[in-house]
Amino acid sequence: MSEKRTIRIGLLGFGVVGQGVWKNIENNRQALELRLGAQLDITEVVVKNLSRERDVEVPAERYSDDPARVIENPDIDIVCELMGGTGEALEHTRRALELGKIVVTANKALICEHGEELFAIARRTGGHYFYEASVAGGIPIIKTIREALVANRFKLIFGILNGTSNYILTRMEREGLSFDETLGDARKLGYVEADEALDLDGIDAAHKAVILAYLAHGKWVKLNEIICEGIRDVSGEDITIAGQLGYKVKLLAVIARDFEAEKLSVRLHPALISKKEVIAGVDEVYNGVSVTGDVVGTTVLIGRGAGQDATSSSVISDIADAVFMLQGAPAPFISEEDEAVYNRLAAGLELADASDLQGRYYLRIHVKDQEGVLAKISNILAEHHISFATVNQKELDDGSALIMVTTHKSNELSIAAAKAALAKEPVVLGKPVSLRIFDPEAV
Amino acid sequence: MSEKRTIRIGLLGFGVVGQGVWKNIENNRQALELRLGAQLDITEVVVKNLSRERDVEVPAERYSDDPARVIENPDIDIVCELMGGTGEALEHTRRALELGKIVVTANKALICEHGEELFAIARRTGGHYFYEASVAGGIPIIKTIREALVANRFKLIFGILNGTSNYILTRMEREGLSFDETLGDARKLGYVEADEALDLDGIDAAHKAVILAYLAHGKWVKLNEIICEGIRDVSGEDITIAGQLGYKVKLLAVIARDFEAEKLSVRLHPALISKKEVIAGVDEVYNGVSVTGDVVGTTVLIGRGAGQDATSSSVISDIADAVFMLQGAPAPFISEEDEAVYNRLAAGLELADASDLQGRYYLRIHVKDQEGVLAKISNILAEHHISFATVNQKELDDGSALIMVTTHKSNELSIAAAKAALAKEPVVLGKPVSLRIFDPEAV
Repeated sequence: MSEKRTIRIGLLGFGVVGQGVWKNIENNRQALELRLGAQLDITEVVVKNLSRERDVEVPAERYSDDPARVIENPDIDIVCELMGGTGEALEHTRRALELGKIVVTANKALICEHGEELFAIARRTGGHYFYEASVAGGIPIIKTIREALVANRFKLIFGILNGTSNYILTRMEREGLSFDETLGDARKLGYVEADEALDLDGIDAAHKAVILAYLAHGKWVKLNEIICEGIRDVSGEDITIAGQLGYKVKLLAVIARDFEAEKLSVRLHPALISKKEVIAGVDEVYNGVSVTGDVVGTTVLIGRGAGQDATSSSVISDIADAVFMLQGAPAPFISEEDEAVYNRLAAGLELADASDLQGRYYLRIHVKDQEGVLAKISNILAEHHISFATVNQKELDDGSALIMVTTHKSNELSIAAAKAALAKEPVVLGKPVSLRIFDPEAV
Repeated sequence: MSEKRTIRIGLLGFGVVGQGVWKNIENNRQALELRLGAQLDITEVVVKNLSRERDVEVPAERYSDDPARVIENPDIDIVCELMGGTGEALEHTRRALELGKIVVTANKALICEHGEELFAIARRTGGHYFYEASVAGGIPIIKTIREALVANRFKLIFGILNGTSNYILTRMEREGLSFDETLGDARKLGYVEADEALDLDGIDAAHKAVILAYLAHGKWVKLNEIICEGIRDVSGEDITIAGQLGYKVKLLAVIARDFEAEKLSVRLHPALISKKEVIAGVDEVYNGVSVTGDVVGTTVLIGRGAGQDATSSSVISDIADAVFMLQGAPAPFISEEDEAVYNRLAAGLELADASDLQGRYYLRIHVKDQEGVLAKISNILAEHHISFATVNQKELDDGSALIMVTTHKSNELSIAAAKAALAKEPVVLGKPVSLRIFDPEAV
């Protein structure tokens, strides 16, 4: 066998994922190098703290705290940005792409917030930016949409993209625990990010939804333009009633394109989803994505959404694609001639807003248990053209009651207006809570 | 934008899949060509019968009944073999690869029976053989194993790879119908291949299992070396009892590698599988594949396993990969230097045989309803070191009875010996039927 090219990799950041990449390349080096037709060498490992103990053994001369040893080093073929965050990581990624390097990342926040700029730099300089690990850990959703389903236009992509909130919802359902009780356990298990809003307010999953919307439709959407609601308001009662009605409550990312109206809806919120849907069966820390293409029909991918090994499997898959590029493959989607591809694909595509959104809803209204209260609530909903499909009432220990209804098809704005009107009623305690009922057949 | 290269495609065969490829390339041409950075031209369409009516309109000058217009034509960049079968298709594929062409195929039988020869020709000549559409229609399982999960060694791949038998089992379960009743409907719907053994005796799915075994482990396995059992022996009672015990009955392909003993088990048979497994929930004509890699953990892919559009989505995805190759990408897995890759990966890997196979089993024994019959059967099983986990007995109208047992962990050979011994007992009517209980945690 002739001499194989050695591909030199520099790691920026050596936390959980970085160490996973090192470990798994070492463990499967033989098979991997045979498959790639190249030798892999992690030449530089840049860390913040040189003295910290780590779980894998790296020769001392490869360690440094100097990012320039990776970024400015002409011998480094692939830069892996595994530091996370949008501060230093942005600066280093920008510089590496300016130099025409290949950058592999798992950093969803950075792509979501600065992807438009970073991909533009890559196109200009001939650099490249790979990001399989940024969405749904070990699930190859980026490659699937970009390559395997290249023949398709994507009417609907939806799924569970945050393992922590899925874990919490699963335990609430199975054990009848409250949100707070389950959150405590999730914290103990180290499942919750240091910045808890990322998991609990849906921001992490929304980052991923934004990335998928860009990938599938070539349109950059800003986080503050879309519905992004986490799971903090989901109660045990919601999950119980949903279960009785044949639904599960899941935190769903939805990317739906109406090809006739040329509107794109990108949103992230908890929703009731029929137990018959495969995605409803994705429990615990697992992620799942359902992709409906106009050619392939519906394909569902399920797997680990996070964790050292699953995420490093995706980083290594990007490294493999980068190795193929270094051996002559054109960059997927970013050949010199295709600078305008995404703009053209996205031309005329408008972001849907709340007025475009309709469907069935679940409402939970906390009321004083008085005569005629249900009639009063029905009237308010009727005034907003909202009609009941089901009603459940539950007495609480303090003499108040919960009224939980599902509606027939309604409009997002009507629901918001009805909730505001209900909140003003003296018989209604606190703010009513609504959850959307997600039906993939009706988007 | 500068002039894009035109990629010329020739279709051999223009049946359901061929017409689907034509139709879907036409429908999504703009997006597809933007993504690929090239123009696609289906220059030649070779058919057997020039006068047959077809559902898509092809300019007359592109039609011919002369395969040489594709195979021997230096202007054709990509040959799509969509004729099926192992006769002419073999001859044309062999010749095209000899000429160093890129061949895209959906022909699982051909790869299963002649893949070793065909891939060897491709390696020698620099041609290439793409086959995403050969396994599980629209599910991108080939690309996922080859590229997305390149970091992994595959302990277990299993799943449902034949939609027709899955449709029959699903209807038997849901409607309590017999195999024969459901088969009649499946025939009417056109779900059953002309050669019914392909679907009903598991041969179609076994072809696909052989391809996945090669892809994941580099080892060619012959169909006659492996367990290949279809669904003809599965009865409504089996499905009912399985359901009561928490199982579904599915026709499963299993590719399990024991990395310590370096044994590879490849098999295709109906099995009881826990309803908790995602694959157990894959119903109707859907296919599903579960892949367990040592790095990524378990990833499951679900989608349409057949049909014009799903299959052509995969063919077009291979065409896209071929277009990238024609623009300079190295052939995945078949660079000049990697001729020996598969042999080295597979070196020392032995095919497991029945004596290596153990697990729990389900047995259905048809008996005369006499006193002591259960004791007699228990004794025979005990003599073969098989012990009961559960027993169900069902009286039949004619006074005979069915005894349905599940066993504790047993060996494949013991079960076979026990079944032979039972068949010789005068109280036993006909041959006992056994189904394996598949537990992904215990392979």
